[in-house]
Amino acid sequence: MHYSPDFIDAQSRQRRAAQARRDGLLQPGRYAEGTAGALMISEYSSLDSGLSATQAIDMLRREAADAETIYQSYVLDEQRNLLGTVSLRELILAAPDQAIDQLMVHKVICVCTSTLQEEVARLIRKHDLLAVPVLDEAGRLVGIVTCDEALDVVVEEATEDFHKGALIANHIGNLRDATVGLLYRKRVLWLVLLVFGNLFSGAGIAAFEDTIAAHIALVFFLPLLVDSGGNAGAQSATLMVRGLATGDVVMRDWLRMLGKECGVALALGGTMAIAVASLGMLRGGTDIALIVASSMLVIVLIGSLIGMSLPFMLSRIKLDPATASGPLVTSIADAVGVLIYFGIASQVLEI
Amino acid sequence: MHYSPDFIDAQSRQRRAAQARRDGLLQPGRYAEGTAGALMISEYSSLDSGLSATQAIDMLRREAADAETIYQSYVLDEQRNLLGTVSLRELILAAPDQAIDQLMVHKVICVCTSTLQEEVARLIRKHDLLAVPVLDEAGRLVGIVTCDEALDVVVEEATEDFHKGALIANHIGNLRDATVGLLYRKRVLWLVLLVFGNLFSGAGIAAFEDTIAAHIALVFFLPLLVDSGGNAGAQSATLMVRGLATGDVVMRDWLRMLGKECGVALALGGTMAIAVASLGMLRGGTDIALIVASSMLVIVLIGSLIGMSLPFMLSRIKLDPATASGPLVTSIADAVGVLIYFGIASQVLEI
Repeated sequence: MHYSPDFIDAQSRQRRAAQARRDGLLQPGRYAEGTAGALMISEYSSLDSGLSATQAIDMLRREAADAETIYQSYVLDEQRNLLGTVSLRELILAAPDQAIDQLMVHKVICVCTSTLQEEVARLIRKHDLLAVPVLDEAGRLVGIVTCDEALDVVVEEATEDFHKGALIANHIGNLRDATVGLLYRKRVLWLVLLVFGNLFSGAGIAAFEDTIAAHIALVFFLPLLVDSGGNAGAQSATLMVRGLATGDVVMRDWLRMLGKECGVALALGGTMAIAVASLGMLRGGTDIALIVASSMLVIVLIGSLIGMSLPFMLSRIKLDPATASGPLVTSIADAVGVLIYFGIASQVLEI
Repeated sequence: MHYSPDFIDAQSRQRRAAQARRDGLLQPGRYAEGTAGALMISEYSSLDSGLSATQAIDMLRREAADAETIYQSYVLDEQRNLLGTVSLRELILAAPDQAIDQLMVHKVICVCTSTLQEEVARLIRKHDLLAVPVLDEAGRLVGIVTCDEALDVVVEEATEDFHKGALIANHIGNLRDATVGLLYRKRVLWLVLLVFGNLFSGAGIAAFEDTIAAHIALVFFLPLLVDSGGNAGAQSATLMVRGLATGDVVMRDWLRMLGKECGVALALGGTMAIAVASLGMLRGGTDIALIVASSMLVIVLIGSLIGMSLPFMLSRIKLDPATASGPLVTSIADAVGVLIYFGIASQVLEI
């Protein structure tokens, strides 16, 4: 069996990481999970300033067995402060006696140990980096995060956001191997919370008991109207959650996005109102058609604005916006939808 | 302003890609979007077999200006068939006169032009590759996909899956710059389809009009019960969709997952049935408590099994399973929930 060199790299990387842990280099637990400190590896290749290109390549040759990558090297002073970075490509292309002080880039894109791992991955992705150096509070180089770790981070973060959107608690691990007990524990909390949350919808319906009893045809349109608000809300929330996660939108875009969402939601609500008006006409006559069409417009508008705002609000109170994209926004939009529908219905039918 | 060498690499890469397009090397449109062929770049570094390590490094030095990466090189014969791959790290570590035929790895992890881009990214991630070579039907090397492109693919694919889950059509682009018209067009289709889909829920409710009119307290529990089925279904669908996307589960795991889901759903449904039974007791007495508790158990079980199965079914009929994770599974579970609830209610109350 033959393996590609990168596959062997991956194996020896794990071995070296285990060694580094034994040596106390990585000090697991020192840095919070999900930060650059917890993610970084300490097997970077470093060079002394003052070397020539040829001397640097010789030094890398000696370091190669222990370094995760020799393709990007970091030039350090005696206190391990980061002076610059140089790629092996540049060293190979340089004149043999050229000083690396002249070759290296002085203004290096770098992160701190406390930088969040999704931010690290975003930087690597944005600038197409092979690796990004991690500095401690004093500005000393303590490790690097490589592109292949960024790839793992991006996949893990997306999985986490998907699960959060469906209100599943963190860290299921590999789904195939997850036990029934684990899956139960990760899913039960929010499901039960939403049962109690849905009491508001129930109470809303109960408050309009007389109207419903008198016009039982209204119940026919209940799931359709209420779900439409939830669905439109889920769409806007998902767009926002993903936009915030990829960095396409930031907190200060909220007002602008909200304005645009008003336009989109009015157009969507209008289209759906027309669709539902004809059904209302068939089923209950002009009054019902008027009620369901105007309810649809208002419900879709309000549902979308809730969906657009909820991720920002969660983010503002330091909760993960990803929680907003699924059943949470749907349940809130549902409860509001019930009130809007029966509110409009009782107004129109009591005239 | 100083840039890191990798940043400059990214810029010159774009320039070279534009040049390659002009030269007809990349031939856009020849390969379907979303495949390795459409994603690959043709600026790989290749080596002739029969070179020594030193000669190979010299050859790379000459190629460096035109190649995306010189850190992984591909050894080709005259017909551009891929013979093996060798990393610059190995060339640097080798004895100067060692033949690359001996240094190179012969069994190379590679993909075809038609391989889906998510599969390419998965391979790069799994084996921690810097780049993966792309071969045409005849086995000739036509390009490479690098780790930083895999990073973009993974982010794009996750965004697409998020949007699909919320039933938003593909390719919104940057959310901040999306126009009202574009967002409307991407969102309206499924929202309107679901309005008509929800007619089934409405018809279900209408079929039980007499039961509802006689026991209006039943309506109080409607959103709570119906939403619970949808929420549990959204959770299982999301777990499956993401599991399929990351490769944690595959199609043949379906039966095993379904069995496990039965256990999880019964536990979840049982817990929620207890929660809702007390509410039913308070609001409508023993009959209502019995109805809502047993409905909850059945609805959560059925909703979860639908959620677990829908992604597999969509996958089986060549549709994207990601579509299943949000409003689609919720709407189906809702309609089924209505029938289960009022079905049980009319049975119990007519005794």
